Amino acid sequence: MTTIDLNSDIGEGFSRWSLGDDEAMLGIVSSANIACGFHAGDARTMRGTVRTAVDREVTIGAHVSYRDLAGFGRRNMDVESADLVPEVIYQIGALQGIAASLGAKVRYVKPHGALYNTIVHDERQATDVVTAISEIDDSLVLLGLAGSTVLRIAEERGLPTAAEAFADRAYTPEGALVSRREAGSVLHDATEVADRMLQLVESGTLTAIDGSTITLRADSICVHGDSPGAEAMARAVRDRLTVAGVGISSFIGS
Amino acid sequence: MTTIDLNSDIGEGFSRWSLGDDEAMLGIVSSANIACGFHAGDARTMRGTVRTAVDREVTIGAHVSYRDLAGFGRRNMDVESADLVPEVIYQIGALQGIAASLGAKVRYVKPHGALYNTIVHDERQATDVVTAISEIDDSLVLLGLAGSTVLRIAEERGLPTAAEAFADRAYTPEGALVSRREAGSVLHDATEVADRMLQLVESGTLTAIDGSTITLRADSICVHGDSPGAEAMARAVRDRLTVAGVGISSFIGS
Amino acid sequence: MTTIDLNSDIGEGFSRWSLGDDEAMLGIVSSANIACGFHAGDARTMRGTVRTAVDREVTIGAHVSYRDLAGFGRRNMDVESADLVPEVIYQIGALQGIAASLGAKVRYVKPHGALYNTIVHDERQATDVVTAISEIDDSLVLLGLAGSTVLRIAEERGLPTAAEAFADRAYTPEGALVSRREAGSVLHDATEVADRMLQLVESGTLTAIDGSTITLRADSICVHGDSPGAEAMARAVRDRLTVAGVGISSFIGS
Amino acid sequence: MTTIDLNSDIGEGFSRWSLGDDEAMLGIVSSANIACGFHAGDARTMRGTVRTAVDREVTIGAHVSYRDLAGFGRRNMDVESADLVPEVIYQIGALQGIAASLGAKVRYVKPHGALYNTIVHDERQATDVVTAISEIDDSLVLLGLAGSTVLRIAEERGLPTAAEAFADRAYTPEGALVSRREAGSVLHDATEVADRMLQLVESGTLTAIDGSTITLRADSICVHGDSPGAEAMARAVRDRLTVAGVGISSFIGS
Repeated sequence: MTTIDLNSDIGEGFSRWSLGDDEAMLGIVSSANIACGFHAGDARTMRGTVRTAVDREVTIGAHVSYRDLAGFGRRNMDVESADLVPEVIYQIGALQGIAASLGAKVRYVKPHGALYNTIVHDERQATDVVTAISEIDDSLVLLGLAGSTVLRIAEERGLPTAAEAFADRAYTPEGALVSRREAGSVLHDATEVADRMLQLVESGTLTAIDGSTITLRADSICVHGDSPGAEAMARAVRDRLTVAGVGISSFIGS
Repeated sequence: MTTIDLNSDIGEGFSRWSLGDDEAMLGIVSSANIACGFHAGDARTMRGTVRTAVDREVTIGAHVSYRDLAGFGRRNMDVESADLVPEVIYQIGALQGIAASLGAKVRYVKPHGALYNTIVHDERQATDVVTAISEIDDSLVLLGLAGSTVLRIAEERGLPTAAEAFADRAYTPEGALVSRREAGSVLHDATEVADRMLQLVESGTLTAIDGSTITLRADSICVHGDSPGAEAMARAVRDRLTVAGVGISSFIGS
Repeated sequence: MTTIDLNSDIGEGFSRWSLGDDEAMLGIVSSANIACGFHAGDARTMRGTVRTAVDREVTIGAHVSYRDLAGFGRRNMDVESADLVPEVIYQIGALQGIAASLGAKVRYVKPHGALYNTIVHDERQATDVVTAISEIDDSLVLLGLAGSTVLRIAEERGLPTAAEAFADRAYTPEGALVSRREAGSVLHDATEVADRMLQLVESGTLTAIDGSTITLRADSICVHGDSPGAEAMARAVRDRLTVAGVGISSFIGS
Repeated sequence: MTTIDLNSDIGEGFSRWSLGDDEAMLGIVSSANIACGFHAGDARTMRGTVRTAVDREVTIGAHVSYRDLAGFGRRNMDVESADLVPEVIYQIGALQGIAASLGAKVRYVKPHGALYNTIVHDERQATDVVTAISEIDDSLVLLGLAGSTVLRIAEERGLPTAAEAFADRAYTPEGALVSRREAGSVLHDATEVADRMLQLVESGTLTAIDGSTITLRADSICVHGDSPGAEAMARAVRDRLTVAGVGISSFIGS
């Protein structure tokens, strides 16, 4: 059976605040990118999230970020390696601790927000992230953007990787994401998005924004749950895939 | 050979700030209580501290605290179990991650500041700390005050424990610490302190503040390094013990 | 015309997170307790909140808290005076700055959460709060619980005060709030609550939990907006009062 | 009498940590750049610092920063205007509150660290800082680098400005600072530095790194106190100036 992973950001609350419907999303995805405290996710939230993920048999990943709670990890920061490497390790370790306390294991790492975007192209910070993961546990899988600098460096260093595509984003003819600043960069039609993802899984291709057909590696599809519309789209993607006979399961071999 | 452990708080800097001379203290003690980010210790500081501890063959412990950076973890906080348990796990896990990245291991946990003082007598918070340690790794040793509630609960639950005495503190005839608010609670004469600690190690006894002799379990002696005077006293204790033929080594069996 | 103030906690978001429907609540209340960054409320949120409050002609108050973002200011903390006094001043000053930048003024101070509850009875912390307000601007009104220690101390010191009643809470025969741990402490019927508040405004009395009638000073009524049900209740109180000819306006003389 | 202002960063402690000898520096300078909590300076530290500054008749300025305590405000951050403007206002307001509580007044604003460096050339962030200061209080003086973008924008907007020179830094023939990455960028000889500053005050000129003579506006000279060597240099500059008959006084007209 053809299978694909669905991943989503989960556990992005903090203190009294919550974001999205994590319970619902953990019924849709096979992999949960769990916030580790630097952009969201206090210890209590992390523990509750891991517990639910374990109950739903969803694979656990560390969603590591710049240290920027006030900016939700979305602001570019010029963090030097001597800070960035230990900060990534710290976050992974903290989630590993929470997971261990519940008999679970962190299986992958996905950078968040501004850090995610930076290491699509920035060699130095991408190297720092790969170094951090390799040093704490080189069996962890790095989940990143297909075609990104960080995935290339991880592969060169022998770190296992998984490439993801974004369900709701348009792609350039070169296989990159269309910038959010451009018209048409974000897709809103759940049916269209679901059809695109089925094509991607079945044929490894997508229609780019100019109408051309591109080839894209996708071990996982990123869906969102931070609004009712996003959650409905995530469900539509899952339903379209399962109806077509595609299994939803983690990129981590069982 | 008779041996005893010396422990001290290490790595209590944050951002641009540092406290004490960690390099010097890591040449004196056999166990380092390393701050985990909640009262001090950003990730970079933690990593540098663990690296130096490994180089000096000093045993690594997690110095866990209430989440109170602005108060250095010294303010009593009424933290409910649903927060406290995961917060302790988070800190231990973070340090475990940093240690793992350097090929090292966290071997024990010592609560810090207000949390330390609270669980000397508070059943609920003491239970939370024991629960947290047991759930993340029940081979970790809990280092706490001789005679405290938290040590009793840990022993009841089967968690390994180590009891510590404070080199520079006076004791009541009942074997408790004399409150800092009372005259004579803190000892300042390095020679007297060193003599007291030698007696404690050799005979398991101490002279209480009223002149009576008490019996005290001590698997470790806590010394300080946050002022030049404190560091000199720590060195005096070590020197007095080694000259008398007492070995300085961790309470963790090698 | 008889008038009464309605106050509510506003601007309790932080970073990407929000709580309740502030726009709606600012159409219901006459006074807004605006979070100042210690339990909620980053600078951007504060500025947006003040701007909306100014637009709706709602009086601006500083909702000051212990420094405990991770606990939403709800955890008791043993903060000494040398910290508490400047922390309260800091928060008021920050909101005054935000208000000044929009041509507005902070008119009152209402402590939040655990600090609010503590100074109902704790002389030392109550004195600290009164000292802080008096030192930064002794024309600021302190809004607190009717009958509380902090209101008494403020009056003794000559600081202007306003006493508030809670719309959705039951009272003891002595005029204190029934503890949340007891059955019947929180009222859920919007009509009943609205009727109670009208009686309070018109006659200065309330029915206590044992059926007796108590006298209560109330310059303001506290309503909530952090759930759809709470907001509906707030609107019911306002509507009941205005239909009965009671004006809704700030306790600050215009 | 010719006069010049000397300014230094003061109050850069946090929680249990301190930096430099503020008492000593407040006996040397005429203007104190006081940390406002975002890179350093909790409320208690701020209040103690303001109190000492008042005692020593040193003019008080707000040392505003990016929100980056873990990085001491030294990391470039891409903070959008909707955050940066209120964040600057928040910090100024907080210090104004602390000052007001002690009968003092904030007279100027000096950006710190990465923010300071960014607005030497970045139009958008420079505009944000000027907007923030103008909106909270347009009588505040902006203290910044001679020749910087932010000073130009402030002047265009009618905000009072003061230009500063750095005592211990080499200048390019164009009047800019030599980058710290280049050899010779930082001067270490206290006598040489003191001589240079006397020349600057008396003639408005400095010798650039290539030996050429440049003209530089300097309403203030920035000196440091974060190491014993830095403090000695600051004292040497002050002594050289006063011996030569130059008065040390704030750029704020009395």
